[in-house]
Parts: sequence; structure tokens; C-alpha cells
Amino acid sequence: MQQYKITFLPNNISVNVPAGQHLLRSALEAGVHINASCGGEGACGKCRVLVEQGNVEEEKSGHLSDQDRKKGYRLACKSIVSSDASIRIPVESAVDTSALMRVSPRNTTRVEQIEFKDIKDQGLLVPPMQKYFLQLAKPDAQDNVADVARLVSHLGLKHDEHGLEVSLPVIRKIPAIFREKQFGVTVTLARPVRESGKTQIINVQPGDTTCENFAIAMDIGTTTIYGQAVDLISGKILAESGTFNAQISYGEDVITRIMFAEKADGLDKLQKVVVESINKVLDKIIRKSGIARESVSVLTLAGNTTMTQLLLKVEPRFIRRSPYVPTSKIYPPIKAIDVGINLGDHVTALVYPQVSSYVGGDIVSGVMGSGMNRTHKLTLFLDIGTNAEVVIGNKDWMACAACSAGPAFEGSGIKFGMRAAKGAIEDFSIDPKTYEPMLITIGSVRPKGICGSGLITIAATLFEMGVINNRGKFERNLDTDRIREKNDIYEYVLAYRNETQIDRDIAINEIDIENLIRAKGAIYSGCMTLLQEVGMGFDDIEQIILAGGFGSYVDLEKAMTIGLLPEIDTDKIMYVGNASLLGARMCALTNQVRREVVGVTNMMTNFELSETSSYMDHYVAALFLPHTDMIRFPKLKKRMQERKDALAKLR
Amino acid sequence: MQQYKITFLPNNISVNVPAGQHLLRSALEAGVHINASCGGEGACGKCRVLVEQGNVEEEKSGHLSDQDRKKGYRLACKSIVSSDASIRIPVESAVDTSALMRVSPRNTTRVEQIEFKDIKDQGLLVPPMQKYFLQLAKPDAQDNVADVARLVSHLGLKHDEHGLEVSLPVIRKIPAIFREKQFGVTVTLARPVRESGKTQIINVQPGDTTCENFAIAMDIGTTTIYGQAVDLISGKILAESGTFNAQISYGEDVITRIMFAEKADGLDKLQKVVVESINKVLDKIIRKSGIARESVSVLTLAGNTTMTQLLLKVEPRFIRRSPYVPTSKIYPPIKAIDVGINLGDHVTALVYPQVSSYVGGDIVSGVMGSGMNRTHKLTLFLDIGTNAEVVIGNKDWMACAACSAGPAFEGSGIKFGMRAAKGAIEDFSIDPKTYEPMLITIGSVRPKGICGSGLITIAATLFEMGVINNRGKFERNLDTDRIREKNDIYEYVLAYRNETQIDRDIAINEIDIENLIRAKGAIYSGCMTLLQEVGMGFDDIEQIILAGGFGSYVDLEKAMTIGLLPEIDTDKIMYVGNASLLGARMCALTNQVRREVVGVTNMMTNFELSETSSYMDHYVAALFLPHTDMIRFPKLKKRMQERKDALAKLR
Repeated sequence: MQQYKITFLPNNISVNVPAGQHLLRSALEAGVHINASCGGEGACGKCRVLVEQGNVEEEKSGHLSDQDRKKGYRLACKSIVSSDASIRIPVESAVDTSALMRVSPRNTTRVEQIEFKDIKDQGLLVPPMQKYFLQLAKPDAQDNVADVARLVSHLGLKHDEHGLEVSLPVIRKIPAIFREKQFGVTVTLARPVRESGKTQIINVQPGDTTCENFAIAMDIGTTTIYGQAVDLISGKILAESGTFNAQISYGEDVITRIMFAEKADGLDKLQKVVVESINKVLDKIIRKSGIARESVSVLTLAGNTTMTQLLLKVEPRFIRRSPYVPTSKIYPPIKAIDVGINLGDHVTALVYPQVSSYVGGDIVSGVMGSGMNRTHKLTLFLDIGTNAEVVIGNKDWMACAACSAGPAFEGSGIKFGMRAAKGAIEDFSIDPKTYEPMLITIGSVRPKGICGSGLITIAATLFEMGVINNRGKFERNLDTDRIREKNDIYEYVLAYRNETQIDRDIAINEIDIENLIRAKGAIYSGCMTLLQEVGMGFDDIEQIILAGGFGSYVDLEKAMTIGLLPEIDTDKIMYVGNASLLGARMCALTNQVRREVVGVTNMMTNFELSETSSYMDHYVAALFLPHTDMIRFPKLKKRMQERKDALAKLR
Repeated sequence: MQQYKITFLPNNISVNVPAGQHLLRSALEAGVHINASCGGEGACGKCRVLVEQGNVEEEKSGHLSDQDRKKGYRLACKSIVSSDASIRIPVESAVDTSALMRVSPRNTTRVEQIEFKDIKDQGLLVPPMQKYFLQLAKPDAQDNVADVARLVSHLGLKHDEHGLEVSLPVIRKIPAIFREKQFGVTVTLARPVRESGKTQIINVQPGDTTCENFAIAMDIGTTTIYGQAVDLISGKILAESGTFNAQISYGEDVITRIMFAEKADGLDKLQKVVVESINKVLDKIIRKSGIARESVSVLTLAGNTTMTQLLLKVEPRFIRRSPYVPTSKIYPPIKAIDVGINLGDHVTALVYPQVSSYVGGDIVSGVMGSGMNRTHKLTLFLDIGTNAEVVIGNKDWMACAACSAGPAFEGSGIKFGMRAAKGAIEDFSIDPKTYEPMLITIGSVRPKGICGSGLITIAATLFEMGVINNRGKFERNLDTDRIREKNDIYEYVLAYRNETQIDRDIAINEIDIENLIRAKGAIYSGCMTLLQEVGMGFDDIEQIILAGGFGSYVDLEKAMTIGLLPEIDTDKIMYVGNASLLGARMCALTNQVRREVVGVTNMMTNFELSETSSYMDHYVAALFLPHTDMIRFPKLKKRMQERKDALAKLR
């Protein structure tokens, strides 16, 4: 995409941004503060800037007079980059606060998508499904062998396929289908995972349908179910869709779901509703992609341990009770229709195995989907969703743990927390003198609340700008009305009532920050504990793979500032998105994954953090911003020292 | 059993019979005629005999005065052998008709039952199911592996069992069952049929149930369903039961069933009712044997091609249409509950494969159950039930065919035909001078009709005694009222109305005999055709294995007299009863059968007799008693010559 250079004055800070991006966001990415409290909707009129060189495309706003416009004033939030430009930010005080203001520029991670070609290039392609069109000889008095025998012997003679197995549902279809197009039929062969296994004839279709061979990959999340339709010939994703897991009505998290499952018929009920959600996603992606349901050859599923057991109707009672025993690590392939999934009766559902009660198939899938199990690099894999799971290791060994991080990063337990949806504050900076905010919301509309990545950025900024201390408490003596005490709790007002969509002030308070610190502390200390158990430290980490719902939006430097991530070169961090879904798709595309999956799962040594003696010490030490031990965060330490020096100079 | 020697006078013919047998039957076995037309009920009073030496136990009858009794007269049908004895038969004429009367004495075949010990002794025992009791360690904080992993690793460490597979239904049971008896559990392992296969954990039960390990074997007949409960440890049959196949309401034979299945919902309906019958048999044998349904580990099924397809809900349409194509030879193992059979969800049903549309799994099962596939002896296997199937061969090759014999041997198409049940005439002889009959019925009650074995004996006796000719037509000029013309059809009255249970005369007519000749002709010519196709003749046959419902009652010499069987030393004939059920039981007891079954099935070369050019000639030649070519029946020829000579002497 075309990039333009935007220079912000007076501090002369430049940033390259893609054409079409708003100026407000560009400023934020440059680490330049512009007051703005309406999220980017153009409602507050605060983000006036002067275009000194170059042009911006302008969306009209009532907050600027024609005269102002002629002078070159624009609202940053309503101006779209369309050339190189110099933009002057009106400075209310003459004091140059740039030395105070500069935190790290926005730095999100590169998104890594594994493609079909990569799989091929890496020699990982062992196609799981193959179709042949066969023109069989018609039976007559001299040749009246059984239909199935005719098929099997034809495949033997013409395609060198031997030792084939045929299931009963296929046998049932055969008589009618053979005769529908004059004994011209397409067979679907499912290749064995192990070399010693047998190829199975899983489907027969009339006529030639060899070009229609599809898979469905699904991630069964506690909150959301995502699915993709994949073309098994090209490897392309044909459609993708998601929906909420309807089990949510019976409990927000896995523990409440398990409690519901323990009631009479509870398990049946939960199984039924998750399948309804799965079928809804299926319907959507089948409709979107336009594929025939009949031509779906395989289904792959990944979910956490509780989601997997609920879907398979396996009693989850002992997952939530010490010593936290799941029922099984590995589940055999099952018929999709046997659990109620609306696909042809030839479709096998492959379910990712579980490591432990809280490190489930979604994580195994993520590890395999991200390629962590094939790299020699020491990798930290971090999946932050409704809960957080950590895996450390490489192709030779892996240690993993679930962190009791809670859903703070999904907005839960945060007063104005919300999911990453339209109106969620996702970016933030603060004027170092007036403490006025700059807010950017998803969709550039007036704010409704704070999403996970926004929360991290807000907390990191407030901390680095000296608004909160390292225990997350507000400085009581700052000269701003935005910090106030309400019901005995200190808070910072991000947006006043008239600037929001919710007819209330939106603020972040000390309890929110405490929850965030607990959550990030649980994750950081989880990683620390695992590393220490294997005799290593963060310095040994060669790459970090981030996965989960909010990963791509997280400002990595901010995440390091609060001590969620260790300080590491951001080039070594990659984001794989919904890793669970990625692994499910990989498993659909190649048997290589299936061959390795049990080995990988068994290799993943699970640590119950609550049972690991060093964990509590690590956790307590991590309940600070960024950590009790600042030596671990040298870049932050240096920035904070520079700010301190600048402050001293100003005084 | 104690045997006694009974000598019948005046002709001084002796026979050894078991204690407790009636005199009437003993006479019949000796080939001695005593008039008796009430079947052995004591109603006609005709079978008076004089006990000259020894004693008989007597059931009282109103037909003898006290005076007669004192003189030593008894009714043969009411007298039970209890010592050696000499019995004089009052002869109405002074003429010694013994030379005329002697046909062959009754000669039924030895019943061959393959026992568990035989299987063991023959090295065929590859136990398919094994149970272990395991006391697992209870999980704790240091050892909280998944339940299934705990089980699998225990089996690996303590029992050297590796590469185990566990199905979803078992996984579902595990959490509760492990905790029911403090982690003391019994597992059932199903051994793979092929060496390369994997052992499967198919069941878990709380506590120690290692001594309860059962199989159910079933024969799914067109008419009747039989089942046995088998102890997999001792090999013993614990209970046996049967019931009519409720599909009978939708058609007597396979063709009418297939026609019904072609109607809307017809297949579903037939599947449902046969499963109901199966479940009824199951209930009976489970009740009779007192075993727990839960401890049934496996189900084995054998049925003809149509019965198999109907049970498995596989479209049977093409079975009845030229070129008579079945859908599949081999069916994979299926879950019993998947077809509606009321057994635990861990139970796999193994279904015998089919050779062709009319040589089905019942025959393959019979071949394997009887051991035909393991003998080097050239064997003729003959299963006569609702239809008749022939297999010729040995362990190295086999040829088979279905004969369109029809159900004459089950009493169908015979005016007074009936199944082998109480009141059926099963034995018969005739006074060579008066043509008065001696009848013995099943249960020694007044006759109701004629069963298959009775029909053979009656026809053979009428033929050998010159009452019917070799085309089955009655001699028109014999001096007896029993031969009469009724509605233009000649018949022989076996029992008059007042001697029967049905308030009508019971007779055998020329149409009956014609049907019998057609049926036996179809079987004999089927055998001939097969033999000729492989370049052999009856002389090459080293043994005959008879199977089917009526086999054990058939008088072999009589069957040879009518030309149903070739003349062969009767020692070479054995009867295996319900061979289909026998094979099903063998398959339940040892994996050896399962290993061999596909090979045997593929080895069985099917001949469609209607497509085999020589068949029609053989058939036409066989439409005589015993055959156009008497040279094939030298013993009969000799007896008939002797009778002719005796007759000439008497004249």
C-alpha cells in the first residue's frame, strides 16, 4: 500500500503511514499527542491541527468554521492521509513537553499466516483426502460381483489402491449412486494417518465431482466459535465465519459451564447448544463459500479441554476439582453426525488432543498451527483469550501452563471494559502537562468502553506519564480534574458523558488497574515459573508467538511497559491470530499434523502453577508495574529516567 | 445311555435302542412295519403287539382290555423299552411279506458339534476379548494425568499392552466408573483381527468383573432368528433361544421382502421389525442365562444376503433383479446400537460376509463353522432351509451355488405340509400288502400334517414299496382305499379325519410329490452342475456336511432313495445343525475365524445356475425318483431288484 510521510510539528516527529489512515491515528503511531476525547468521531472538536505542507482529504465537521478551514485547520480525526504532509499541532503552553510526552510509538506485531504453499514448501503436505472419478463397468450376467467389490477391484486395477476399507454409510449409498450416472462415480479416499493404517473409502458421489473436495476447520471457543471452509485442492480459505458459543447463556466461563453440566441433563443441554452454534457457523460458511455440504470431506475441531469434553458429551466434573483431572488427552476420530453436527454421514470429525484440564486442544492446535513444534528456536507461545495459556519450548521439548489470568483482557472485571467492538477505546495518549487524553476508538466513533488492548495502552501510558505509580495507584496531587475520587475509589475520566455513547462518564479506576495488574502478573509469572523450572530465563527466548482474540491490536511496547510481556526485540514477536483455528485448518490440509499431534501433545509437559512452589513468589513480584525488578525492563527504565531528567530540567 | 435289544417276530429282526424309547419308533428304526395311523398317541389302537419275552413299561390305553393285557398284548406306541425284549407283531395274513417290507432301517446322521476344546486343540483359539482387573493409583496433585492416560499407562506398565485405542463411548464412561470403586476397574480389550491392527479398550466396568465376559452369536434367518449366549472364558453355550423373524408379516421369502423394501419406508420398516425380533431373542437368552447385558462383549451375526442387507439397511433392490448384484460382500464391524440392537454401546457386531446375492453370510458362516475351510477332504456342504445352498470344495478351493429348491422341505407348497413341530408326521412305513401306514409324529400325538423329513420318508417309502412310480405318480391299480382320486388329483390318505387333530383326512397327493421332486431335483442337479464345472463327480466326494433346520431328522437312506442325496456311505455324512449359528459362535470365540473369513469368502466361486449351460440338463434328468440314471443309485437298484424278485416269487 502507498505510504506517506507525515511530519508532526512543532516537535518534528515523522512517521510513515499508509494512505487513507486518519491523522489522529497517525499521530498516535508517531507517539505524538493530540487532545481528543470523542474517540475519533469528530464530536469534541478538540483535535484541531494545521496542515502546513501537503494535503489531507477531509470529512466535513461542524467544529471548524470556513475561515479556519481556509487557514489550513483540520480535525485530525476527520482528516485522511493522501500525500506527504507537515502537520502542526497547536500547543497551548509554550513549554516544549516533547521530552515528557514521548513514550514508545505504537508498535504492533507482524501477523504471520501459514499458507498452503508454505506447507508444501516445508514438505509437510500429506494430503488427507483424495478423489477419483471412476467409470465402472456395468454388471451383467457374466460379471455380477457385488457393487462394493466392483469398486474396490477397479481402484486396485486402475489406481493401484489396495487394502481399502469401506464404512457402512458408504455401502448404503452405493447401489443408488452407482446407477444414477451409469456407473460413473467419484470416490473420496481418506488416507491413513499412520503408514500401517488403511485407506478408507468415505464417500461416493454420482458423476465427476473430483474438483469439489472441502474441509471445515473450527475453533470451539468458550466465548466464540469460528469456522473456515477450506478447499483441499488449492488450500484456499473459501469462507470464514463465527458466532457466539450459545453455551454462554449457561455460564460465562468454563467453571460455571462445568457447574451447569453437573446438573440433571445439564451436560446434554450444553452439548446440544454448542452443536447448534457449530451448525450455525457451518451454515454460514457453507452459504458464503457456496460449496455443497455433501462435498465436505472432513471436519477438524480444536477447543479447550472443557469445550472439547462438553462437545463430546464427556463428563467435565473433575476438570474443576482438585487435582484437576481431564478425562482423556486423546479422542478418537468421531462421526460428525454422531455428535449432531450437520454434515454428511461420511464426515469424520478430528478433535485436537488435550494436555491437561486447562491446557487444551486449542493450545495444542495453536502450537502445531504456528509451527512451534517444528522450530529449533526457543519459543514463548502465549494465547490470551478468556484465559491465558503459556507454552515454552521448541521442536525438542515443551513446557506449558495455564495462567489464572482471568478475562480482564476481554474487558471482564473492568468497570467500563468491553470486547473489541465498535466504540471500544483501543488507543490512548495523554498530554504530559494538562493530562488531557487522546482517544481512538474502534470504528472512530464516540467511546462506549475500553477493550483489552486499550486497557493495556491506557495503563501503560498512565504509568509511564507518572499518572499512576508502580502499584497502579493514582498520584493524588496532579493538577487535573480528570483524576477524581468516586465512591472512595480513585479514577481517571477518559471521556465525559457528553462525549460518550453511553450517557455516562467513562473512566478507568484503581480496581480496574489492580485487576489488570493481577492478570498480567499471572501471565508473566507463569512464564517465569516455566522458564525457571526448565532452568532458563527470558533472555533465552528467541521468539514470542502471540495468539488469541486481541493479539494483533496490542501495542507490544505498552504490553512490555506494564510487564505483560518481557522486554524483547519486537521483531522477534509474531502474531498468529486465532491459532486454534489455524491449527485446525492445518490438520485439515495435511496428515502430517495428525501424525505428529499425539507426539507433540505427549511432549507438552504440563505444570500446575498452583502446585509449583516458585510460582507464588514470581506472582507476588509481578504485581507491580512493570515488576518489582526493574532490571528486567532496561528500555523502560531508561525512558523513565529520561523523563525524570526532563522533568527536573523543566522545574 | 442304556441300550436294549428288541427282537421283532415273526421276522426275527433285532435292533438296539435306548431305554425309554417307544416300541413303535423302535420298530420303525428296525424297518419293521406296524399299522398305526394316529401318530403314536394311542388313539387308533391299531399297533397291538405281543410281548413274548422281557418287559416294557406301559402307559395305559383304553384300547386294550384287561384280558388282552394279561395275555401280554400292548400298544406299541404306548410301550416304553425297559429291557431286552421279544415282540411279536400279529400278522393279518399268513404270507411272509418281510422280503417286500424291508426298506432301509432308519439312519440319521451323526450330529457334529464343534466344541471349544476342539477349537483349542486345533490351535485355532485366538481369544478376541480379554478382561483385566486393574487397581489404578488415585490421582493427586503430583499425578493428575487424564483418566484415560492413567488407564493406558497402567496397562502398558503392568500388562505390557501397547498402542491401545479407546473409543468415545468408553471415554464417556470412564470418569464415573473409575470413581465408583476407588479406581478399581475391569477393562475389556478387543484384540485386532490382523496382526497390524490395534487392541481396543472397548469397555470399563467398576470393580472386578473379569469372570463375566460373554458373546452373543446369532443366525438371522428368513424365517427364524436363533441366538446363543456364549461364555468367552469357558466357551460354553449358556443359553439358546429363537423366535420367528417378524419380517414374515411382510413376506414369506426373500423376494417378497425385497419387494416390500422397495416401497416407501419399506426398508426402514423391515429393518425395524427384524431388530425387534433380534432384541426379543436377546432378551430371552440374557434372561435364560442370567448374564448381565453389560458384560456382553461382542455380537456375531450371520444371515443370508437379503437378511444381512435388510438388517444393515442396505438397499436390497438389485438382489432380485438380473444380474443379481448384492451391494457388498464384506461389511465392516458395526456398533450394535447403531442398528438398534439392545446391547451396550461398546458392543461391536461382526457380520459374516456374503458371496453373492443368493449365497450369503449364513453359508459362509456354515462353511467356517463346520470346518469345511480347514479340511483337505473334498466336501459337499448342503444347507437346506427356506432355500438350499450347495458348496463343494475343501481348504484349497470352493464352488458354490444357490438352488431354486423352494421351501418344500419346510412344508411349503405341500398340501398338508407343516414345519417340524408337534403333530408333524416325521416317520412312516407301509404294509407291503395292505398298504396300511405306520405313522410316527413329533411328540407322538395325533397327526396335524407332514414335516420335511416326514415328506422325504413318505415319498421314499411309497416309491420303494411300489405305490408311486419314478415320476411320482400313484399306481392306479393297487388294492387299497387309501389311494383315491380327489378333485382329479390322486392321493394317499395317511390318516383319516377321526385319527387327526385337524378334523380332515391327511393325505399326500401327486402335486405334493411333484413339488418334492422339483425341490430335490434342483438340489441334486445343483450339486451335479458344480461338480461338473470343476471336472469332478459324486464319487470324488469324501464327506457331506448337512446343515439347516431339518437335517438331523432326515433319514439319510430315504433321502438317497428319492435322489436328494447321492448314494454315499452314511458314515461320511455329518449333520451340523444350524451351521450359520455355529459359525457365528466360532467367530465369537476366536479371531482365527475372523482372520480367515475374507479369504474364505473370496475363495468361494459363485455359480449362477441359471447362467450355467449344463444346469438345465442336469435338472431335467433329476426330475425322477431317484433320477433318470439308476446307475448312480446302485444300492437302491439292488433293493428294488430284490423286491421285484420277492414279488415274483410270491405270485
